[in-house]
Amino acid sequence: MNPYQSAFICVLLFTMTTLSAQTRRQSVDLLVLGGTIVTMDQTRRVIDDGGIAVVNGRIVAVGPRAEIESRYTSRQRINAAGKVITPGLINGHTHVPMVLFRGLADDLDLQEWLTKYIFPAEAKNVTEEFVRAGTRLGLAEMIRGGTTTYCDMYYFEDAIADETAKAGVRAVLGETVIDFPVPDNKTWDQAMAYTERYINKWKNDQLIVPAIAPHAPYTVSEAHLKQVKALSDTLNADVVIHVAETKKERDDIKKDHGDTPAKYLNRIGFLSDRVIAAHAVFVTDDEIDIFKQKGVGVAHNPQSNMKLASGVAPVPEMLSKDVAVGLGTDGAASNNDLNMWEEMDTAAKLHKVISGDPKTLPAEQAFEMATIRGARALHLDKITGSLETGKRADIVILDWDDLNQVPFFNYYSHLVYATKANDVRTVIINGRIVMLDRRLLTLNENAIKIDANIYRKKIIESLRNQ
Amino acid sequence: MNPYQSAFICVLLFTMTTLSAQTRRQSVDLLVLGGTIVTMDQTRRVIDDGGIAVVNGRIVAVGPRAEIESRYTSRQRINAAGKVITPGLINGHTHVPMVLFRGLADDLDLQEWLTKYIFPAEAKNVTEEFVRAGTRLGLAEMIRGGTTTYCDMYYFEDAIADETAKAGVRAVLGETVIDFPVPDNKTWDQAMAYTERYINKWKNDQLIVPAIAPHAPYTVSEAHLKQVKALSDTLNADVVIHVAETKKERDDIKKDHGDTPAKYLNRIGFLSDRVIAAHAVFVTDDEIDIFKQKGVGVAHNPQSNMKLASGVAPVPEMLSKDVAVGLGTDGAASNNDLNMWEEMDTAAKLHKVISGDPKTLPAEQAFEMATIRGARALHLDKITGSLETGKRADIVILDWDDLNQVPFFNYYSHLVYATKANDVRTVIINGRIVMLDRRLLTLNENAIKIDANIYRKKIIESLRNQ
Repeated sequence: MNPYQSAFICVLLFTMTTLSAQTRRQSVDLLVLGGTIVTMDQTRRVIDDGGIAVVNGRIVAVGPRAEIESRYTSRQRINAAGKVITPGLINGHTHVPMVLFRGLADDLDLQEWLTKYIFPAEAKNVTEEFVRAGTRLGLAEMIRGGTTTYCDMYYFEDAIADETAKAGVRAVLGETVIDFPVPDNKTWDQAMAYTERYINKWKNDQLIVPAIAPHAPYTVSEAHLKQVKALSDTLNADVVIHVAETKKERDDIKKDHGDTPAKYLNRIGFLSDRVIAAHAVFVTDDEIDIFKQKGVGVAHNPQSNMKLASGVAPVPEMLSKDVAVGLGTDGAASNNDLNMWEEMDTAAKLHKVISGDPKTLPAEQAFEMATIRGARALHLDKITGSLETGKRADIVILDWDDLNQVPFFNYYSHLVYATKANDVRTVIINGRIVMLDRRLLTLNENAIKIDANIYRKKIIESLRNQ
Repeated sequence: MNPYQSAFICVLLFTMTTLSAQTRRQSVDLLVLGGTIVTMDQTRRVIDDGGIAVVNGRIVAVGPRAEIESRYTSRQRINAAGKVITPGLINGHTHVPMVLFRGLADDLDLQEWLTKYIFPAEAKNVTEEFVRAGTRLGLAEMIRGGTTTYCDMYYFEDAIADETAKAGVRAVLGETVIDFPVPDNKTWDQAMAYTERYINKWKNDQLIVPAIAPHAPYTVSEAHLKQVKALSDTLNADVVIHVAETKKERDDIKKDHGDTPAKYLNRIGFLSDRVIAAHAVFVTDDEIDIFKQKGVGVAHNPQSNMKLASGVAPVPEMLSKDVAVGLGTDGAASNNDLNMWEEMDTAAKLHKVISGDPKTLPAEQAFEMATIRGARALHLDKITGSLETGKRADIVILDWDDLNQVPFFNYYSHLVYATKANDVRTVIINGRIVMLDRRLLTLNENAIKIDANIYRKKIIESLRNQ
């Protein structure tokens, strides 16, 4: 064999070996390699130096990096060495366009806040374009903070769905129906017709779960609540509702309907495993049992409930009965941000001081509320909330060495008590990278800020002229 | 006049005009120009497009930019256009080296947390070098978050003073004295002798206020507390002490000394306007009156008190009686960070839900607790806590257009409810720039993290072998 022949054979052998390795390894859409994976699966597996393989937006494998690399190959790879990888966070309750009213008015009685500021500001400013601008701003803040799924209740929800889908974010989006004229629909019948069209339009979307959102038991009549339930049954649609947020609501419902809010809703056949109840501050043990039996999801909003002085929801009791209770920020007009890291931290601390027991709501449980239990609260736990084979790829990659995170001893403690929104580096939703190394890929941050500042001026002007 | 002559005259005229303008304008060490100044002075002046002139670490003028620029010139200028400028934040209570125990153990009963984790970890790890490494880490986190003054209580306080002065941070640093052997001093007499030397060494420093820190009324005997008071009188030194942090302490002191903690301390002549009392969770209305009469400063630590389930201090009552009550993070082993923005936000929200009134502790009052009232709590309000002529130049420059800050309606609301530590851009202490555009100038962030991770391994190893 002459040197040319032996060189040719070497090249041939090398090519065959490479091709063989490639055919042995399955080609996937995305590989996340390296870093520690906090899966939040049933066994709470934590994988050092892990890897995740994604095909068509779905996780096809989670395990040690070496194993994932030996089985899968991809042109799109994210090196997560030295980082921590968690399920995307789930914001269980917000009114996303209200981020444009962030800090408009604070430290007021609820009635004064609503009637002097929020209601007039909404009446004079909320259009479909306002809602779109606010949604983009809220989505940008949520992605930056590692939120991959959120549950909304507002007006023009079809526009919110459109903006959310374009940004690539997962959401349960409830169109508000209420017994008085609102920015998008002037009558109950119009609102119900809008909602039916909206739900049918979005019901097969991969990211958007369209829902109907009767505002609250005190703003929607019994007859209308029953209509909502019927529509939900017909369309198999989720129902988002505020329940028992304030003592006044609890007392008024009791006076008007003979039962406290959750019992009243249960009595009229409204509750089901499609319902997502926000707040649940004033609920009795019996009512917690009802939530569990009916499979109602609950969104606990500790910072909003504190700031508006509503009260403290009996979350430890709900958790002890295994109710699907997640965490929400509420609208940024009442919080004043969409930051789930602060919400976790506050929940864990608030329930300790209220119960008088520092063992109450430990860090792992708080993180569970922001991930897999939050997914249960939105009836989405089959598709998101943990990192495991078969689930959609909703993934957050966190820096783990910022000054506020040094030194490190325990994953859950660090996630809940030390990590900040700013430590979120990369965000993947449904297999699509929506933020890479803190750069938003599906939203234009500068344009969003410019739009927000245009609405800021309009809002100030509109309240000056009232 | 030929062209050369006229050109010469032009140059001469220009030079004379420039020199004349320069002689009219006073040359200063530093000018901060542009941006909105939230002064926190007595009239709560807010200056749009403002300016601050600094000479020898002291503010010589604060006002509209045009006025400052017409009167002063400097080679060192910071352009703060579009930013917000506030007094540096004041962390009223911490144990700074304990940042190395951040997240070591959480969600435990106080006794278990202390006896199984913190005390053994301290006994096996706390050396002067440990304290220096922890102090540098804590200082870096505090500067990044806009804290320019802090109050500490720990061991090897002389080393803490050395690191703090080198980093250019202002602090009241209390050497701990306690009725049992601790890492730096094995007997009471040794500790008192150390403290006297330490106070004499630092008493004329521009940044460091050396103090004596008897740990608490339940860990220091009555005779020893009286010795502390005598030393404080002799040296004119501040006294830092934990007071009435837990119900158990309140009950034990009442049983052993016949009075609740603050009354007991008052009865034995311990309280004065040099005392800084941390926590004050369990104090009666009478005791709040005593704090006011005696001029005792109080450090409220809402997040630590929540996480350890200690209770909620009667802060609205203290504020209504004009007690000098500031905010503190407590040590990062119990919080788990040194973030004053979250502490403000939590304080404002916690006291609303506890009082049931959303008007309680409005944003402006929370920001006051973190600045000028916090300075009063540390008996430093003559030199820091607000931006006004004559005070030391302790200045924070904030980004004001991060996604979490858009849109903007009200300064105090935005500072307390929307601004994060990460929005701090530039920090000036005593006229010296210690962070510029988020780059630490007096500390080496990488070296600090490397040191912290060496101690992390030692701490884990030391607890494994117990």
